[in-house]
Amino acid sequence: MIVVMRSGASATEVQAVVKRVEELGYQAHLSAGRERTIIGVIGDERPLNEAAFHLLDGVDKVVRILKPYKLASRDFHPQDTVVAINGIRVGGPRVTVIAGPCSVESREQLLETALAVKEAGATLLRAGAFKPRTSPYSFQGLGPRALELLAEVKETVSMPIVTEAMAPEQVPLVAEVADVIQIGTRNMQNFALLHAAGESGKPVLLKRGMMSTMEELLMSAEYILSHGNYGVILCERGIRTFETYTRNTLDLAAVPVLKQMTHLPILVDPSHATGNWEWVTPLALAGIAAGADGLLIEVHPHPERALSDGTQSLRPERFGALVAKVRAVAEAVGRSV
Amino acid sequence: MIVVMRSGASATEVQAVVKRVEELGYQAHLSAGRERTIIGVIGDERPLNEAAFHLLDGVDKVVRILKPYKLASRDFHPQDTVVAINGIRVGGPRVTVIAGPCSVESREQLLETALAVKEAGATLLRAGAFKPRTSPYSFQGLGPRALELLAEVKETVSMPIVTEAMAPEQVPLVAEVADVIQIGTRNMQNFALLHAAGESGKPVLLKRGMMSTMEELLMSAEYILSHGNYGVILCERGIRTFETYTRNTLDLAAVPVLKQMTHLPILVDPSHATGNWEWVTPLALAGIAAGADGLLIEVHPHPERALSDGTQSLRPERFGALVAKVRAVAEAVGRSV
Amino acid sequence: MIVVMRSGASATEVQAVVKRVEELGYQAHLSAGRERTIIGVIGDERPLNEAAFHLLDGVDKVVRILKPYKLASRDFHPQDTVVAINGIRVGGPRVTVIAGPCSVESREQLLETALAVKEAGATLLRAGAFKPRTSPYSFQGLGPRALELLAEVKETVSMPIVTEAMAPEQVPLVAEVADVIQIGTRNMQNFALLHAAGESGKPVLLKRGMMSTMEELLMSAEYILSHGNYGVILCERGIRTFETYTRNTLDLAAVPVLKQMTHLPILVDPSHATGNWEWVTPLALAGIAAGADGLLIEVHPHPERALSDGTQSLRPERFGALVAKVRAVAEAVGRSV
Amino acid sequence: MIVVMRSGASATEVQAVVKRVEELGYQAHLSAGRERTIIGVIGDERPLNEAAFHLLDGVDKVVRILKPYKLASRDFHPQDTVVAINGIRVGGPRVTVIAGPCSVESREQLLETALAVKEAGATLLRAGAFKPRTSPYSFQGLGPRALELLAEVKETVSMPIVTEAMAPEQVPLVAEVADVIQIGTRNMQNFALLHAAGESGKPVLLKRGMMSTMEELLMSAEYILSHGNYGVILCERGIRTFETYTRNTLDLAAVPVLKQMTHLPILVDPSHATGNWEWVTPLALAGIAAGADGLLIEVHPHPERALSDGTQSLRPERFGALVAKVRAVAEAVGRSV
Repeated sequence: MIVVMRSGASATEVQAVVKRVEELGYQAHLSAGRERTIIGVIGDERPLNEAAFHLLDGVDKVVRILKPYKLASRDFHPQDTVVAINGIRVGGPRVTVIAGPCSVESREQLLETALAVKEAGATLLRAGAFKPRTSPYSFQGLGPRALELLAEVKETVSMPIVTEAMAPEQVPLVAEVADVIQIGTRNMQNFALLHAAGESGKPVLLKRGMMSTMEELLMSAEYILSHGNYGVILCERGIRTFETYTRNTLDLAAVPVLKQMTHLPILVDPSHATGNWEWVTPLALAGIAAGADGLLIEVHPHPERALSDGTQSLRPERFGALVAKVRAVAEAVGRSV
Repeated sequence: MIVVMRSGASATEVQAVVKRVEELGYQAHLSAGRERTIIGVIGDERPLNEAAFHLLDGVDKVVRILKPYKLASRDFHPQDTVVAINGIRVGGPRVTVIAGPCSVESREQLLETALAVKEAGATLLRAGAFKPRTSPYSFQGLGPRALELLAEVKETVSMPIVTEAMAPEQVPLVAEVADVIQIGTRNMQNFALLHAAGESGKPVLLKRGMMSTMEELLMSAEYILSHGNYGVILCERGIRTFETYTRNTLDLAAVPVLKQMTHLPILVDPSHATGNWEWVTPLALAGIAAGADGLLIEVHPHPERALSDGTQSLRPERFGALVAKVRAVAEAVGRSV
Repeated sequence: MIVVMRSGASATEVQAVVKRVEELGYQAHLSAGRERTIIGVIGDERPLNEAAFHLLDGVDKVVRILKPYKLASRDFHPQDTVVAINGIRVGGPRVTVIAGPCSVESREQLLETALAVKEAGATLLRAGAFKPRTSPYSFQGLGPRALELLAEVKETVSMPIVTEAMAPEQVPLVAEVADVIQIGTRNMQNFALLHAAGESGKPVLLKRGMMSTMEELLMSAEYILSHGNYGVILCERGIRTFETYTRNTLDLAAVPVLKQMTHLPILVDPSHATGNWEWVTPLALAGIAAGADGLLIEVHPHPERALSDGTQSLRPERFGALVAKVRAVAEAVGRSV
Repeated sequence: MIVVMRSGASATEVQAVVKRVEELGYQAHLSAGRERTIIGVIGDERPLNEAAFHLLDGVDKVVRILKPYKLASRDFHPQDTVVAINGIRVGGPRVTVIAGPCSVESREQLLETALAVKEAGATLLRAGAFKPRTSPYSFQGLGPRALELLAEVKETVSMPIVTEAMAPEQVPLVAEVADVIQIGTRNMQNFALLHAAGESGKPVLLKRGMMSTMEELLMSAEYILSHGNYGVILCERGIRTFETYTRNTLDLAAVPVLKQMTHLPILVDPSHATGNWEWVTPLALAGIAAGADGLLIEVHPHPERALSDGTQSLRPERFGALVAKVRAVAEAVGRSV
């Protein structure tokens, strides 16, 4: 941590900062520039509150030097993490395609979609039982009944399941059926839920908050990792900006940047990012070209009748075409599907 | 709901939309412009999914006409809602000042702050027992022990208490002590928590998500209202923008705009918005001038030693000066403290 | 400037940075922390490119310590700057109210508005001759003819004039008539225009870019100041965010923050920020309560017939009511109108 | 255009709107829903001001139906526009790679870079003579001297030149040397400059404003097109968001969305978007995978000594590797370099 003094700070003010640094058990390293004096605080800055120095007289600003995340960091774990899910490996040379409908609506709808996406090349099935909806008047998901259908279809189709938990008390229920527990964009900083997911021992698919920085995403991953659960898969799904033509703005720079910051695998969800099926394929290809470890794609046999997110869902045959194109781009960047 | 056809849409495409509108039990109202045909969908559009029309051939876009919120709307309830809390009325001519430390840290710290803010003119005491923190390594609040201290100090100082619940299962615990349950910015769309707060019967202080539109804030209020709990107080606390000099950007236009959209009272929290005590007073005054029903202000006897948010906390004497200035501005706009 | 090395950077890498610092004529100040080594660069960092160090092996990041603006800074000029315009002083204890129609449309419209706003308490008249419009099909302003009308009405009504220049070659033309040259939000980083305005010697009203940080606003002011033109008045007029209910988000924290960063006077423009006359008055009051030195308000005798920005224009009688309320709030914060 | 009345608007209020519609020469089409009456305005809405209706009593909102751009629209010109520049065709099946240093610094630097990027596969050379810099203290470009060097190197290396004009009066000067005139992100709404570029007759490379919507980008293109200049090439270069880890957020959804909205070719600039050379290659590949017609890449022989933007510049050998990878991805999506 570095404390930057205001220009014209007095020697007494500087001394008070040094004294405070030492009182807190750190070493102070003084460096007097031409215009400003700066004071290096030597030691692990993570537990320190900036206010401890910021509020002292003559202080202009406090700059943190260390990354606030540790277990999620490449410094801590230089090799890529590969998350194994029933024999499927997320984060290795193969690109993982996860697909399915936004919500479980019926046995027929789920089964039809599962068979179609498996046939097309998806290796995990994703469908929501509990749905976070902006409006209390919208379809909220079939809940426990959907979990039963997921368990049944998982058996029939033999595909691992990804589904979302929205509250800590849903985690044990979801964990019984799901191979991967999803934490959605609105819950990225639901710390009680992160705690419960961390303790579940199940792999967690953690979506970036639509207004969260990459650093905050890693801090949320850190909550899960710090419970001894190392099966964390990150997902970029679009952030909120002033542009309203697409639902959100897919931040594909997050892929190479996160690859540098962390060892955790990173997926891209172009369906939620754009909100429109017509733009899903080009952005899926872009995600793979940028280096993502996989994709999350919404597929529905009859999008116009979907109870949620129909506008962004691909029909199965279009999903098949997408996978074929993804395969070509994956090969162009040295990977496979 | 209005369905706008692409320019050049065929008569068959238009007819298919009309047919779909009627199948869904609505009336279609055709209007052929010079360049585009538009189709009005007559009936309550709220349960309709846009995808039902958007995905039909020849459709360019679907525009909603009705507000998605109902119980929160001024159309539904034209008079201002006043929330009564132990004789204090939030939303009436008096401006309500809520103050206290970010976290409960000790009996002494809480009691000292409570006495000071009451003396200065605050009528509700706010302090956190459960703290949502970006980092798992930061102080997470004293939890149940803090609730005991709040209960004790509430008795001693005789001030109603506002404190946050972070998860549905904390709501009953918090509701035993709190006069108002706070839902924080990161939890504005934690729908399980909104549900639990709605059922608690206690007044709820609902903070706007730092990434949420005003309409989404009202939809979250609608979750609480739809459980028959009408004691909802809204709070603007800053949204996330590209400007990094302040922690968030306080959106004071939200005050008059929300006053027009809804009957619910609206508070302003300049402490979290700016993240710096030096800017709290001018923005508190601005909030009152803009028509807010009250303020949420962080106060700590020793900000430099605070376990969280010290940088933005006012010392008690500065808080006293703030209240005096707020009083003057409140009077200038026809209100009192 | 501080160079932060990656954790695990080698001694050779550190030495290469030190060598580069010294080659560039600066002093290096080494500080070895427990996890990271940091190198202070002693000397005026402003001419330095970060790339000079950032691209060396083992460097993690480069942190600037000094403010990039100098003449605009309070460090350089601690007292408030007061800009004098024909006897009107912007930036002193009196709050300045500037008002007028968005565009000059006709002699009658301009004269009627000028008389009305003067009567209500405005001291400067603002109206556009050259209009920056998003669409080439919208009304682009009357241009030179409008300047003639401004000159005529200025004489008749005896009010100083504020009007916008959109290109360097318009500056001399505008400067003949205007007492203050406005630089609009879309031109805040039109550096050729800043240069021309700087050389004109006339006071400049510099509006913050809707996409610009406060620091960038001060850097644009610095362009004008560095031409020896010290008559710069800043104006906050709303920034672009994800919230679409208002046209832009008025960032009122900019008022106290800029007051701390700079000595230049700061106005607030609630008309362009909100885009709706109904919200102009509460935000004008909020601006004054936050400490602004004045207001920019759009007024039109017949907003429904305005050729531009009618939706946000106040009718003269409503403007009169606004000024009366502004007076009350100004007095509450120790100022006058 | 559709006028939506408030719920509870009276018949008289509705009639007043209808009357106003007809007075303005349009036809009104009334549609009474269960909760709201809406009034369709039949005719070309582009010249209409929303205020004409918005300010009438009982009106809730005014919704535009038509796209505000015309010449830039796919409706107007369904085929892809291909811009021909000395035999190079931007917008056809071949992907165009434009590369060069941020600024012209010297004959040696320019020549060395030009030879290297040509060798690696770039077909146009880009380098700045006039540089828009946030700070007046930063290097502002060599100006006319740089244009001379560009003319010389263009001859020697036989590559067409792209260079920026920052002000209308620079356009003729720049047009003498440049094959394509660049309009930078800060000048996307510099309407006087758009006008001058439109009249120059030269192809224009129009960069999206960092805080501009796609619709606004097309409106700026419309300014150029409406001067009869059809050689407009769009460029996505990152928008401003709350994420600060990258300099801007590259909005790759803009590629397929703009392809749908307009017939104009679209390039991607990953260098300015990320601000860091390490992330340029993955985002260049992503841009091509998303369907972009080409790339703009900053290359410098000695980035650590660059006078501007060194941090994001690739060394020539790394640029060569980038082009090889771009070729593979282009082929995977059915294009070539």
